Amino acid sequence: MTSRIARRRDLEFQLFEVLGVEALTERARFSEHSRETFLGALDTALEIAAEKFAPHAHRADESEPTFDGTRVRLVPEVKEALDAYVAAGFLAATRDYAQGGMQLPSTVARACQAFFEGADVATTSYASLTIAAASLIAAHGSPEQQQRYLPHLHSGRFFGTMALTEPQAGSSLADVRTSAVPAADGSYAISGTKTFISAGDHELAENIVHLVLARIPGAPPGVKGISLFIVPKLRVEEGGRLGAPNDVSLAGLFHKMGWRGTTSTQLSFGEAGQCRGELVGEPHRGLAYMFHMMNEARIGVGLNAAMIGTASYLHALAYARERPQGRPLGSKDPRSPQVPIVEHADVRRMLLASKAYVEGGLGLCLHAARLVDDQETASTPEARADAAAQLDLLTPVVKAWPARFCLEASDLAIQVHGGYGYTREYPVERLYRDNRLNAIHEGTNGIQALDLLGRRVAAGGGRGLALVGRSLQADVRSAAEHEPLRPHGEALARAWEQLLATTRRLGEATARDVELGLANASVYLEAFGHAVVAWMWLRQGLAAIRGLVSATGEEAHFYRGKLAACHYFFRWELPRTGPQLALLDSLDATCLETRPEWL
Amino acid sequence: MTSRIARRRDLEFQLFEVLGVEALTERARFSEHSRETFLGALDTALEIAAEKFAPHAHRADESEPTFDGTRVRLVPEVKEALDAYVAAGFLAATRDYAQGGMQLPSTVARACQAFFEGADVATTSYASLTIAAASLIAAHGSPEQQQRYLPHLHSGRFFGTMALTEPQAGSSLADVRTSAVPAADGSYAISGTKTFISAGDHELAENIVHLVLARIPGAPPGVKGISLFIVPKLRVEEGGRLGAPNDVSLAGLFHKMGWRGTTSTQLSFGEAGQCRGELVGEPHRGLAYMFHMMNEARIGVGLNAAMIGTASYLHALAYARERPQGRPLGSKDPRSPQVPIVEHADVRRMLLASKAYVEGGLGLCLHAARLVDDQETASTPEARADAAAQLDLLTPVVKAWPARFCLEASDLAIQVHGGYGYTREYPVERLYRDNRLNAIHEGTNGIQALDLLGRRVAAGGGRGLALVGRSLQADVRSAAEHEPLRPHGEALARAWEQLLATTRRLGEATARDVELGLANASVYLEAFGHAVVAWMWLRQGLAAIRGLVSATGEEAHFYRGKLAACHYFFRWELPRTGPQLALLDSLDATCLETRPEWL
Repeated sequence: MTSRIARRRDLEFQLFEVLGVEALTERARFSEHSRETFLGALDTALEIAAEKFAPHAHRADESEPTFDGTRVRLVPEVKEALDAYVAAGFLAATRDYAQGGMQLPSTVARACQAFFEGADVATTSYASLTIAAASLIAAHGSPEQQQRYLPHLHSGRFFGTMALTEPQAGSSLADVRTSAVPAADGSYAISGTKTFISAGDHELAENIVHLVLARIPGAPPGVKGISLFIVPKLRVEEGGRLGAPNDVSLAGLFHKMGWRGTTSTQLSFGEAGQCRGELVGEPHRGLAYMFHMMNEARIGVGLNAAMIGTASYLHALAYARERPQGRPLGSKDPRSPQVPIVEHADVRRMLLASKAYVEGGLGLCLHAARLVDDQETASTPEARADAAAQLDLLTPVVKAWPARFCLEASDLAIQVHGGYGYTREYPVERLYRDNRLNAIHEGTNGIQALDLLGRRVAAGGGRGLALVGRSLQADVRSAAEHEPLRPHGEALARAWEQLLATTRRLGEATARDVELGLANASVYLEAFGHAVVAWMWLRQGLAAIRGLVSATGEEAHFYRGKLAACHYFFRWELPRTGPQLALLDSLDATCLETRPEWL
Repeated sequence: MTSRIARRRDLEFQLFEVLGVEALTERARFSEHSRETFLGALDTALEIAAEKFAPHAHRADESEPTFDGTRVRLVPEVKEALDAYVAAGFLAATRDYAQGGMQLPSTVARACQAFFEGADVATTSYASLTIAAASLIAAHGSPEQQQRYLPHLHSGRFFGTMALTEPQAGSSLADVRTSAVPAADGSYAISGTKTFISAGDHELAENIVHLVLARIPGAPPGVKGISLFIVPKLRVEEGGRLGAPNDVSLAGLFHKMGWRGTTSTQLSFGEAGQCRGELVGEPHRGLAYMFHMMNEARIGVGLNAAMIGTASYLHALAYARERPQGRPLGSKDPRSPQVPIVEHADVRRMLLASKAYVEGGLGLCLHAARLVDDQETASTPEARADAAAQLDLLTPVVKAWPARFCLEASDLAIQVHGGYGYTREYPVERLYRDNRLNAIHEGTNGIQALDLLGRRVAAGGGRGLALVGRSLQADVRSAAEHEPLRPHGEALARAWEQLLATTRRLGEATARDVELGLANASVYLEAFGHAVVAWMWLRQGLAAIRGLVSATGEEAHFYRGKLAACHYFFRWELPRTGPQLALLDSLDATCLETRPEWL
């Protein structure tokens, strides 16, 4: 079973051979860690994912959560799985030892999380949201708030959510209307409706801590008047004792295409006027705090897409190796036995494309996690700031590229299975439905595109872009020394130069006419993503060449597979950016100028 | 509701302004028809589709067919819808007046069918399979068989299926094992298992006529030893009276991603040794006969994909015009009202792409149907043969291109809806699931690619390719006279020349090394499809320019929308073929040379 969740060997490769996480143990925060403790964490995660998460993924999908007007019911395996996850300490994987955490680097913690997402994304989501909520309170909550909530979020006694979206305010958070009226005791009376709140109700933990965006009366309009509140489902009294219900009621559950094991809720806050929230940080700065959580969550979405795609790929690969059908094109004698479909070049095309998408996507997400570690623990302030600038630039790509292309791997997995893949008897159908969410939540891919081109490429005078380029060029120079990778390095360098030129051109156009300059931002995001993932493949290719020097048997196959996927990406995928950049350079206005009434 | 099934105006445009179907009334077979009778058929189809099919599409999806071991149960609306369809005569739309048919051209009959597919593909499938079965018996059955079955298939008293696939023989029909042993009375004893048989059991008609591929003992191995049999569920006695059950039993239902209203069955033939079949035509020629049905069915798949995509697009368009969210990029004042999302360029991009895919795909399918009409009723044998050669070439593209790109429209429709699109409360989620089948059934897209490049482009010395090229060049010359289309025509001519060069290069490579020459056939199919659909858009663009001359108001919007989609296709889509053809020209062996153990 584990071989269809994720490949431990690939995670090990990405962490140690590409990202050099062992070097992190030289930093004070991680000095008690070693290669062995990192691998131990991975092994524990994989074991729990395989034994507790994967086995119920199908059942949780078929038996959606129900709400009888009072209680939400899930299949019991969800709680059993999360109990095992919590008991192993993964809710606090990156937190301080003093807080009961494992003090793992973000890179390693994300790699552990990857196994759970490959095994069952729906069950894992309850944990991911809790980690994100704790992280936000740790970063921006008051000492009292941290004391009141963090121990329970780390121990799994409380779970968390992020409650941004309202029926009239999805992509447009400026239109959030939930209100927060100051009360005499320093708390706020919360009132409003939030929608699509994942994990918004359940009985998996004793309490649920909602992080809610709301407006204080008199706040400035738009995003500059949004504040952030901690709003527990049950009030939390002295010593962590649970008090009365906090007037947060479940208005209903959504029935989704996938992620069916995750409750997706509409929540009513303060219908009886009894909902109290605690302000986090300063008034009107809520969106900035929430973006702390959102940026982490966006890496999570990318990883999620990469891992659902990975599971899809591994199922397709196993099926293709076992399923006999047809014969080689050159020897069609019907009396000869049929061959496994992996022998057909077109099936290998689908598998190799999938591998290139999911292992490239995974590489990108872990690269981002490595930047998180550098942002927090690199040795100099400059190095930390450099990492932060790169991370800021790459975050929309880390979210959107896997959501788009690792979904493609889930699609191809259905195709490899043929008719069987279209039935619910095989998991790839569910994996596709699960993966389809990732282009929508945490900011649609269209929003990511506007964020990348309209804000992030130019942030800090283009510092992130310059730093990424410098890092990429270093790998291009390394590739020049290895004949099979040299042309790929040259192609990447050319593509990057073209991308920079297009970026300048669009920046100038945006300065003159923002609608025109940003009209085709989605194409820019896709081309940018392909260039960055090509870079990730160049890095993986370099690591594979190093590994191949002394590898034999299975190990040699592994490295040759990496090189095959690297070649595939450079020969089949990167050239797609040519027409895309040409289209962008032409400042094409076809979509912009199409009037709604013509459609 | 009708506006979210299909656009009557677009069907009218495609039929009369692009394909010139009115000219068909000059042919003897259609001489009693007129523009008015054609439009009357369209109106009747749209009315029944809207009133009887669309309303239960959601319910039929949610309430899958069940099998209690004895009977298969469907929601009752399915039968009510099909009864209305049958009563209006659509089962026999193209058949002779003498057979109770409407003697409609295939082009018009397909356009009628399009409405039903946009309304509910699952319910429509029972009818489509019946039409295909009747068509096959009409073409290849004996006079006695025609007399015994056709009246009942035309009247809807019997429904039909096509039973090719077996558990070990999906894409590889050479491996069909079902046996047919001659009996003393001239019939054959059928024995074997067929799987994924759509509409294989139900109570929508009094009887079900299965068209079954099987082997007669002693037949040559492979596809040259397959014969075709008529195998009714209940035996048919003198005068059409129904006799005993024919030992065809339902082994089980598949539970599918979509098309849930269509029973997908595993059928056991002859478990009790009592299943009788009637041989169709000559022994061992079954696959050729079945391909008669398959080629029709492949146009049906393309149309199906185009129409599910159309419905997806129309739902997304309606949503985008109604849903307020966000503000123009240039005026972000949060106190101003939100605008409908269709005002955002990126949403228009998704809608325009969808429109370009689905109306281009529909144009391609109707173009193929027009070739069917020419193949059957053009005035000279040469013209009929020319049409047949073009149809033979284009069939894999007609099947596969819409299955791939009109699915994209269904995907984009979810994206336009944001979080709501991911819920089962909105129909786009179901439409996506329904559309996903089309790349799989009636020969996967990978099989279509091998068929196109490995057989059809070279068939008859490349006659089909030359004829399509000649027809395309005529439109390029017309485009040269209209400034906005001139560059598109030039781009199309260049792309076609490049495609021809690539075709020659791949043909030479295949002659030397069939595995290498055909390794990237899927890329070839996609590039070929994009070139052909670009041509369809050039034709639609030309028709729109003619129409615009005198159009005002809504009519002018309609034509401007056509031109916008035409521009979109040429500026955004056709350039994709550049890197694809370059890859093909390089005889890239990345996928071919990747060993299974590296994956």
